[in-house]
Amino acid sequence: MVKVPKYYQVKSQILTLIAGSEPGSPVPTERELAERFATSRTTVRQAIAELVVDGRLERTQGRGTFVAQPKLMQVRQLTSFSQDLQEEGWRPGSVVLSIDERPAGADVARHLGIAPGSVYHRVERLRTAGEEPIAHEIAHLPGPLPGLATHLAALGSLYRTLHEVFDTDIAAVEDVIETALADPLEASLLGVDTGLPMLLVHRSGWAEDGRIVEWTRSVFRGDRFRFVARHRLGDDVPMPMLTGS
Amino acid sequence: MVKVPKYYQVKSQILTLIAGSEPGSPVPTERELAERFATSRTTVRQAIAELVVDGRLERTQGRGTFVAQPKLMQVRQLTSFSQDLQEEGWRPGSVVLSIDERPAGADVARHLGIAPGSVYHRVERLRTAGEEPIAHEIAHLPGPLPGLATHLAALGSLYRTLHEVFDTDIAAVEDVIETALADPLEASLLGVDTGLPMLLVHRSGWAEDGRIVEWTRSVFRGDRFRFVARHRLGDDVPMPMLTGS
Repeated sequence: MVKVPKYYQVKSQILTLIAGSEPGSPVPTERELAERFATSRTTVRQAIAELVVDGRLERTQGRGTFVAQPKLMQVRQLTSFSQDLQEEGWRPGSVVLSIDERPAGADVARHLGIAPGSVYHRVERLRTAGEEPIAHEIAHLPGPLPGLATHLAALGSLYRTLHEVFDTDIAAVEDVIETALADPLEASLLGVDTGLPMLLVHRSGWAEDGRIVEWTRSVFRGDRFRFVARHRLGDDVPMPMLTGS
Repeated sequence: MVKVPKYYQVKSQILTLIAGSEPGSPVPTERELAERFATSRTTVRQAIAELVVDGRLERTQGRGTFVAQPKLMQVRQLTSFSQDLQEEGWRPGSVVLSIDERPAGADVARHLGIAPGSVYHRVERLRTAGEEPIAHEIAHLPGPLPGLATHLAALGSLYRTLHEVFDTDIAAVEDVIETALADPLEASLLGVDTGLPMLLVHRSGWAEDGRIVEWTRSVFRGDRFRFVARHRLGDDVPMPMLTGS
């Protein structure tokens, strides 16, 4: 028989308690829950911590614990983050944290198909939905892209900038998705605790002529995001493979 | 400035220590690491726990801690789990935990496009790679599939059974990927700790005529798996949408 830890029972009990509640509804305090379920506050705290990670509850500093909004959906194909969110009814935004040119280390060089030490563009951004920080993203872009920072500031979207200014369209992508724990920088930028499970996505993007256009590392809040991939028979055109990452 | 917790510094130090080590190499004991990095064993334990979750270290009961194998890759498109793993050089297997027919609840009915209470086939399996349990999977299949259990036992692969026996091919899929924490049953089946971050994948599959063929919930070990989605321009044929899940 599977042994069910006490905190997990309490987790199920809290889920039953909040079933049907509107997002934003307050949940009882730790003390009240401990009394109701005849358990310790430590056990209740562990149950709540997991429900926060699962995106079922959210905690607001000094205000208490509430039923969370449902996870955001994101359709990631050849659309950009901005388009994705707009279609889902969220107001997408982004904050450029840094744009610079730097020599490629071994990992970046391999993914961009350039020689180590070659200069590439690095664009680090915080992506937002509504007012909420939702992802930390570092795009690595090969080749000369004169005035990238200025154009990106004017146009807002990186894909739009590549299309309108540099006549480059992404024709094929490969997304590699895994779980990773938020590091201190990501946690600080996204307003979550260090160690929260995140969705880590590495995207490689190619132009129609097979040229690598981007290799981008995105960390999405695991408590707020889902990733959607769609595929159809006949889509299986081979594309450059980078599965050794 | 971002405050970096002590355990996170130790985590980075351990990563530096094992950089370049072969998978399976032993790492020093908690006590040795605590001495080396002039910190407490509690801090070392927390660092190791996160490295295990990240799939960088693995702990074997009574034997110690070792550098982990790299994460398995999985290409998920119209291929089956079995094909995916075979192509990656892993020996795929599966253990049928249960096959039965049962009336659909609201959630299953909605995803299969059938009336609540209609009977569907439920196939619960443990998927393995080599000898290692890697995923827990529950497939929900609508319609009459006479002798499903027998045919599946003979053929091994569900997609192959659908193709060879029931003349049904999956022509389009939608995969929704998120993080979730292992529940006690999943943890027990997959040999991990309850609460380990997992990759939770819900797949909807359609036949060429638009009929829903499957809605499948899979939980992959987050410390062992990545998910790969590929997409090409021109693949954006609309397909039935089920993004409200």
